[in-house]
Amino acid sequence: MVFYFHDIIYNGKNAKNATSAIIGAPAWGNRTILAGQDHFGDLVVFDDPITLDNNLHSTAVGRAQGLYVYDKKEIFTAWLGFSFVFNSTEHRGSINFAGADPLMNKTRDISVIGGTGDFFMARGVATLMTDAFEGEVYFRLRVDIKLYECWK
Amino acid sequence: MVFYFHDIIYNGKNAKNATSAIIGAPAWGNRTILAGQDHFGDLVVFDDPITLDNNLHSTAVGRAQGLYVYDKKEIFTAWLGFSFVFNSTEHRGSINFAGADPLMNKTRDISVIGGTGDFFMARGVATLMTDAFEGEVYFRLRVDIKLYECWK
Amino acid sequence: MVFYFHDIIYNGKNAKNATSAIIGAPAWGNRTILAGQDHFGDLVVFDDPITLDNNLHSTAVGRAQGLYVYDKKEIFTAWLGFSFVFNSTEHRGSINFAGADPLMNKTRDISVIGGTGDFFMARGVATLMTDAFEGEVYFRLRVDIKLYECWK
Repeated sequence: MVFYFHDIIYNGKNAKNATSAIIGAPAWGNRTILAGQDHFGDLVVFDDPITLDNNLHSTAVGRAQGLYVYDKKEIFTAWLGFSFVFNSTEHRGSINFAGADPLMNKTRDISVIGGTGDFFMARGVATLMTDAFEGEVYFRLRVDIKLYECWK
Repeated sequence: MVFYFHDIIYNGKNAKNATSAIIGAPAWGNRTILAGQDHFGDLVVFDDPITLDNNLHSTAVGRAQGLYVYDKKEIFTAWLGFSFVFNSTEHRGSINFAGADPLMNKTRDISVIGGTGDFFMARGVATLMTDAFEGEVYFRLRVDIKLYECWK
Repeated sequence: MVFYFHDIIYNGKNAKNATSAIIGAPAWGNRTILAGQDHFGDLVVFDDPITLDNNLHSTAVGRAQGLYVYDKKEIFTAWLGFSFVFNSTEHRGSINFAGADPLMNKTRDISVIGGTGDFFMARGVATLMTDAFEGEVYFRLRVDIKLYECWK
């Protein structure tokens, strides 16, 4: 299963379009502008549309909701805890993810740690690719999810 | 297994009774009052008593500890990462949870992502119901946990 | 598998050596000094070196990256969500952890909730021990990881 999700971070000027916002920052940072040192310490909450192709304006099939935090000073890396929430005719339920995202790598793997509804008890690995990155306001991730159920 | 847990959020006046507190907020919020736009961006840490019935004053059988964050502007939804920590004659060990909580739904499912002690290697699904909600200070969740071990 | 990781928290004076920083705090706290009441509400992001022995200056074999939050007023306890990220000749991939850490106990168990690369689909339990604690700036955790794969 391949999906895309789209993150537009609040920067003080885009309240209407923003899908995410900084809610934690180190002592030397603030919650409007991403901090120096590769954004180390910036914690972001997001509610991002999920689409089937790479077009932000395609119909959303669900929402990616949760947190990411930039966690290294010398290079961009992040740690993610979030869910894909589906409520469409095609999919109903959620997939839960956690893991490290060394986001300068072309691809990187995080864990599917559980699922509900159509994705009951799912486990697996999701491969992330940064499909687009525009300044410090917008990025789009391609997510290739491989599920392996194990409970049967 | 059915449990209840009780969350009393700090609001500047209830330091003695509060079991949780806002520790992150968006640029337009603060850490004493839940923010507008459905509390989008408010991150809360909690240490809530777990009881076997819906009475806040019943003997606690454990503590629910971790984080929740409100993650949508248009409606109340949250993302949860937390543990049930038991240290009683009946249960010893912990159950770890993560997932999306679209909290306006009557029931919603999150994942049991692991366990320790009596709950060694547990996986499963927990169904949440809001059992009570008083203003913006107190809520009580009913949690119905269904575990499926898979490692044997 | 036994590893150690080393956390040096930013305290306003050690920007060069610090490997972690407070990024969320309760209304009565701040992001430079750990709060009273057992640091309840302090949220810390970290990028800590992992070593094979208990020497901070040994060659790091990976990084422990993620979040911990102090979550109780009456005693020190924390909730952890983080990853071990390995990129050495010996190990390549990541191990993802979540769980409660009642850190005054000599040992405590958290869950391995997933893994990638060499640790593909790993699950298990990790036993934490505080191996050293120096004031409120440095601590070292010993982590004994026991993995049980379940997907085959």
